[in-house]
Amino acid sequence: MALILNKDMLKSWNDGPVKQSILDFLKSSIEQGPNYVKPADRIATFDNDGTLWVERPMPAFLDFLFRVFATTAQKNPSLVSAQPYKAILERDETFFQKAIEQDHKAIMALEGAFAREWSGKTPDEFEAEVKEFFATVKQEKFAANFTKLVYKPILELFDVLKKYEYRVFVCSGGGRDFMRVISEETWGIFKENVIGTASQYEYNKGTLTRVDKALGGIALGPGKVEHIFAQTGRLPVFAAGNGDVDIEMLESAKFRLFIHHDDEEREYAYENGAEKLFAIAQEKDYTIVSMKNDWNEIFR
Amino acid sequence: MALILNKDMLKSWNDGPVKQSILDFLKSSIEQGPNYVKPADRIATFDNDGTLWVERPMPAFLDFLFRVFATTAQKNPSLVSAQPYKAILERDETFFQKAIEQDHKAIMALEGAFAREWSGKTPDEFEAEVKEFFATVKQEKFAANFTKLVYKPILELFDVLKKYEYRVFVCSGGGRDFMRVISEETWGIFKENVIGTASQYEYNKGTLTRVDKALGGIALGPGKVEHIFAQTGRLPVFAAGNGDVDIEMLESAKFRLFIHHDDEEREYAYENGAEKLFAIAQEKDYTIVSMKNDWNEIFR
Repeated sequence: MALILNKDMLKSWNDGPVKQSILDFLKSSIEQGPNYVKPADRIATFDNDGTLWVERPMPAFLDFLFRVFATTAQKNPSLVSAQPYKAILERDETFFQKAIEQDHKAIMALEGAFAREWSGKTPDEFEAEVKEFFATVKQEKFAANFTKLVYKPILELFDVLKKYEYRVFVCSGGGRDFMRVISEETWGIFKENVIGTASQYEYNKGTLTRVDKALGGIALGPGKVEHIFAQTGRLPVFAAGNGDVDIEMLESAKFRLFIHHDDEEREYAYENGAEKLFAIAQEKDYTIVSMKNDWNEIFR
Repeated sequence: MALILNKDMLKSWNDGPVKQSILDFLKSSIEQGPNYVKPADRIATFDNDGTLWVERPMPAFLDFLFRVFATTAQKNPSLVSAQPYKAILERDETFFQKAIEQDHKAIMALEGAFAREWSGKTPDEFEAEVKEFFATVKQEKFAANFTKLVYKPILELFDVLKKYEYRVFVCSGGGRDFMRVISEETWGIFKENVIGTASQYEYNKGTLTRVDKALGGIALGPGKVEHIFAQTGRLPVFAAGNGDVDIEMLESAKFRLFIHHDDEEREYAYENGAEKLFAIAQEKDYTIVSMKNDWNEIFR
């Protein structure tokens, strides 16, 4: 297969070992040899928050949930003493931090509230709320809508992967249907290639409504691999992530890309929530992207 | 958009109103006007058994299950008095008929046995059993492997839909992972475009194993629409089916194709299990394919 990459294709990536290791892997995966991957197997999976767009001070999905749950609790006094409503109303930083770092108990409280909140609602009703959120809420540091804070180098990487006949999926612990509202316009990724935590729906008399029941578990840690297998029937060949909840997804792939947030000036510099993965990435020679050094532009 | 269809593309379809209605719909769906469907929305869903391949005397998946469960019951005397094992060992035609006609109780018994049977097994172990089945078992009437008894006109329709930028999905009450074993080679459909009844998997220490728990409900009737929405985030624009368990899927689509089995000589002629859908199809002007009159070839 003769494949000539347009030199402009990864132009937000500085030349160097990281960019080269991506291109070398992709090239070797389409050429006969020990690294060859047959086209049907070419699945690439990307974490969302912190890998595809900004996740600080808080992932967009959590920001969305917190706003909705605050309103819900204000309307339902019986909820104010239960989590996650209590923490949200009291602006309990500890709970927020736990949720952001994806502590199990905090996540379960959020998951329960998430399933209840839209129970009985249609996909269109949910979509309208999400659209309103994306149209109006601005991220603090950049005073921009979340959909503007998508990493340009990752979108360029999607394009390159597609050139090599990879099918690109986004897999997040965040809400599947939340991401699907913006995935096509913002990321160029069809809804069916968006994998995430989800509720079940019930179809009755021509209408789909959400029910208070999760579909599979939460797509974090091992749950990412489980959701990816359920959606695609495969494990990824190429995977990219930035946090400890991506450890298993990266472990399950052949080529592993770790996004290191080390650019306080243009984005953020942090390792909390990524300590274990960063250690594994260094020990096992994953390809480590320094946002500061490897990307000459950050946002699309 | 100037799109010229190759005249050979639906060559197993006889010229006439059925072929024309398909082509007219597809053409109108890509042209500006009242029937225009934007590319992202172009989802087509096909039932499997009886729509894409032969389902008589018994759908391949049921044939597979019955053989496996018979062996399991012989090895586990405690199971011989429980369904579905009892019926299988006793060759209870009534139970088989109920299962084939997708009676709820029979299906639930099969579903339970299905979830238990491969609990703790890896995808590779399951795949090996399925491959063995497809390689060795022959359908009675045609003395051929099931993978040979795929309808050529439907495969041609897949190709035409793809030309019009539709993404084609197969959605069956049968096992998702069972179909995925053969979907790429036999149907030209990627695993991620195969939707069906499925069990959950657990990822632990680098290995996926199946757990005794369904992922969503059974993909029959309303369950088809629920599974399609979960997988794709949409309802289908184009849907094809042949049985009462496809009623809701067809109802949820814009263009509905009903496959009428009326060719006893070249395949089978039957309406049982399709009585309600056939009545709806006639009443609501669905496009009704007469296998006898509209297809000049049946099998690939």
